[in-house]
Amino acid sequence: MTDLEAANEEFFAAFEGADLDRMEALWADGPDVACVHPGWAMLRGREEVMRSWALIMANTPYIQFVLTDVRAEIFGDRGVVTCSEHILTAEEGSDVGFVAGGSLVTTNVFVRVGDEWRLCLHHGSPVLNQIEEE
Amino acid sequence: MTDLEAANEEFFAAFEGADLDRMEALWADGPDVACVHPGWAMLRGREEVMRSWALIMANTPYIQFVLTDVRAEIFGDRGVVTCSEHILTAEEGSDVGFVAGGSLVTTNVFVRVGDEWRLCLHHGSPVLNQIEEE
Repeated sequence: MTDLEAANEEFFAAFEGADLDRMEALWADGPDVACVHPGWAMLRGREEVMRSWALIMANTPYIQFVLTDVRAEIFGDRGVVTCSEHILTAEEGSDVGFVAGGSLVTTNVFVRVGDEWRLCLHHGSPVLNQIEEE
Repeated sequence: MTDLEAANEEFFAAFEGADLDRMEALWADGPDVACVHPGWAMLRGREEVMRSWALIMANTPYIQFVLTDVRAEIFGDRGVVTCSEHILTAEEGSDVGFVAGGSLVTTNVFVRVGDEWRLCLHHGSPVLNQIEEE
């Protein structure tokens, strides 16, 4: 695994762990960062993006990702990773737990800061039309 | 408007015009191109992406975009454009026409080929949760 792919894995691991500190450490600084959560409008600026992660993590009792079709490409000090995610999550109020699943696709753009890859754009979206995968 | 922003406008103009030749001319060559239509899984490779555009254009009698919140950033031979789109489209079978609307968010990654920007990644997604925009 390249360091860019490892940074991409770190994004999903921070989310799975509901670890806001880890998520904050991964994201780049400044007003140019942007984030699209699945089904959401685009959020711009580190402050707004981090507020959204705090909200989402507080409302996600359990989530686990299985990544497939990961492609990572580096050009200069930027890296673009695209991948599909198959998710397990717990629905609040469910006695059974772990009932909800689904598929997402993600584009993550990273910027190299020193010897680290920091996330500057996350775009996640729901796969609503499974026909295209067949 | 920069040439990168103009390339981004060309993408939406080609779609509005249902002009597959124009869309094909905008996209980069090769297996590394990728496309996520709103609600779709990720399509990879120029051939599959172009087949999807032919299908979508054949099934979209009318569509018009109003772009907002456009941000374009260049690093080396790549350019990343993010924007929101507010759409008007016609539903087939509607007597009134022009009834359906909605909002999307897009990430477009372009590669510079000679003096042209060519599209290598399009990721569009539906805005399902309007609360975040308020």
